[in-house]
Amino acid sequence: MWNSTRLTDQLSIAYPIVQAGMAGSTTPELVAAISNEGGLGTIGAGYMTTDVLSDEIEAVRKLTDKPFAVNLFVPEDIQYDDSAIQMMQEKLKPYYDKYDLKTANVKIHSEQTFLDKIQLLMDMEVPVVSFTFGIPAQQIINQLKKKGIITIGTASSIEEARMIEQSGLDMVVAQGFEAGGHKGAFTKTRSIGTMALIPQIVDSVSLPVIAAGGIMDARGMLASLMLGASGVQMGTTFLTTHESKAPNVHKEAIIHAQPEDTTVTKIFSGKSARGIENNFINDLETSGTNILPYPLQNDLTTSIRQSAAKNGDTAILHMWCGQAPTLAKKVNAQGLFREIVAHTDQLILDFKMNNI
Amino acid sequence: MWNSTRLTDQLSIAYPIVQAGMAGSTTPELVAAISNEGGLGTIGAGYMTTDVLSDEIEAVRKLTDKPFAVNLFVPEDIQYDDSAIQMMQEKLKPYYDKYDLKTANVKIHSEQTFLDKIQLLMDMEVPVVSFTFGIPAQQIINQLKKKGIITIGTASSIEEARMIEQSGLDMVVAQGFEAGGHKGAFTKTRSIGTMALIPQIVDSVSLPVIAAGGIMDARGMLASLMLGASGVQMGTTFLTTHESKAPNVHKEAIIHAQPEDTTVTKIFSGKSARGIENNFINDLETSGTNILPYPLQNDLTTSIRQSAAKNGDTAILHMWCGQAPTLAKKVNAQGLFREIVAHTDQLILDFKMNNI
Repeated sequence: MWNSTRLTDQLSIAYPIVQAGMAGSTTPELVAAISNEGGLGTIGAGYMTTDVLSDEIEAVRKLTDKPFAVNLFVPEDIQYDDSAIQMMQEKLKPYYDKYDLKTANVKIHSEQTFLDKIQLLMDMEVPVVSFTFGIPAQQIINQLKKKGIITIGTASSIEEARMIEQSGLDMVVAQGFEAGGHKGAFTKTRSIGTMALIPQIVDSVSLPVIAAGGIMDARGMLASLMLGASGVQMGTTFLTTHESKAPNVHKEAIIHAQPEDTTVTKIFSGKSARGIENNFINDLETSGTNILPYPLQNDLTTSIRQSAAKNGDTAILHMWCGQAPTLAKKVNAQGLFREIVAHTDQLILDFKMNNI
Repeated sequence: MWNSTRLTDQLSIAYPIVQAGMAGSTTPELVAAISNEGGLGTIGAGYMTTDVLSDEIEAVRKLTDKPFAVNLFVPEDIQYDDSAIQMMQEKLKPYYDKYDLKTANVKIHSEQTFLDKIQLLMDMEVPVVSFTFGIPAQQIINQLKKKGIITIGTASSIEEARMIEQSGLDMVVAQGFEAGGHKGAFTKTRSIGTMALIPQIVDSVSLPVIAAGGIMDARGMLASLMLGASGVQMGTTFLTTHESKAPNVHKEAIIHAQPEDTTVTKIFSGKSARGIENNFINDLETSGTNILPYPLQNDLTTSIRQSAAKNGDTAILHMWCGQAPTLAKKVNAQGLFREIVAHTDQLILDFKMNNI
């Protein structure tokens, strides 16, 4: 049962707690705080350039000598036509205008950027790499493993977990329906609740399983271990810490949200992600305009979202959030992590002293 | 933490495991098997007449002297117009024809039937009554409590759990997104995963919380207790037992299903329920024909579903199922219950002997 040592031993960490790679919201301070306390901090590098990522890794290394991870988005071939881009640009016009922005255009997305980041992680000997949106090419996995880098995939179904196992990745994050932010699904979008997903994936693969989705505290961690997981990945709980780069209005929105206030939308990036429902989502989801594939939709909305963040416009901002926001707190990451560990110890003691 | 004694003491049961009141699928044999083993069996009386319910209670009492529950659907005012009924009847015509059935009509639904059942439960001194689809009138709750009957409500959100607590009901089932069969929601339909829902409801009410949704085995039970629940309610896991009245093709469909094969539909009864996706659901969900409110939609589809069950037509049958069907087994209820208890003991022992 107690698979957690499979995770902690392999990752050389004290507690089976992974801070999710929240692209756009992690800081070296957050990553280092989690790693210094005995968890696994993660640099959310999905949107970073190679140069920025290099700087981030250096900054984390200045703050901790403990293991940490880098999370990357696996690129995929994109199908699109120019007229769909034009239509989305027109639809977004009122938002560009609102902030006096030029109409954004799609960027050129080369697989080379991804390959460059992989090379950087190997050159800088980053201990752990986690992947979202798919499984990298076999050659990349082989190279990383040869370098002794531990690799983690993200699955939202039994099928994806099996594919990850077959690819040779070392661990699998089993991401349930409750999870905030981007859905890791890379086959079909699946909506399986964490309580149902974890034991079914545990029974289907022999890799260590890291539970994710709606897990916010010591209770969720111990529940996940009971389900057979080897550890947990938590995002929203760390998103509201002082060290997170999320705008203050986003943090405030989370701690004031109810569980039913979130929705899953592709409108911000082109990939399904769970966030707090707002006018921007409602406006564009109901407009009938086709949402562009990731990352093109992201290219067109980035400047709008940056302006919304600057102006504190919660009606427009993407406010990623899982389904347990009432458990979130605005505190510092070190204190929060220590509280989770202390509460875990307390629960284990209670459990051992009392009959259930 | 170990709230489970709050449940077991109050219900006078040995293990904090409630068999869900699966209307249409429970038998006296199933209910008695669970109660005899130390859980709480439940007669799913949502669709029963008072006479049938009376017979069922007597039949259960012949098989066990242990506590058991009766689950009732709380009636509500229905708004409808005849043209909507006609349109649905036309849409269902091919299905009536397929089985040489007369076109079904809606029935007269009087609150009196519900009141008669309540009176029966008091007269027969049934120990526990659970409610789905709402909270009964205050007078009914008061009468039941005066009789010493323990009352349980069903919530799918923090708001509903608070309403249940305020009404004076004794316990609350917190039903997560993963749950098979009917959604208990009585305010809005909420889709909160069990892992996220349980701790948030536990933190919001002081009633004992019974976790439901995707819980199939000892792992799910212990996970729920870790989340702060006082016990669990399990449906799908008991639906495939030999004692369940579910048609064999339904049981076979569950044990061969994948987690993503279920969907939530109102097409069978007029209320949201999770079942295995099939042609009937796809045909009627995409037809554009308005689904009638519960129980009128149920009135129109009952004969079709009965014929589908008789003929083993899985393309038409309602096949309720939660999101963890790969954990289901076709076994006898007593053996399954004992296996859950034995596995729980084993996990607790492992937990106590090992560090996590």
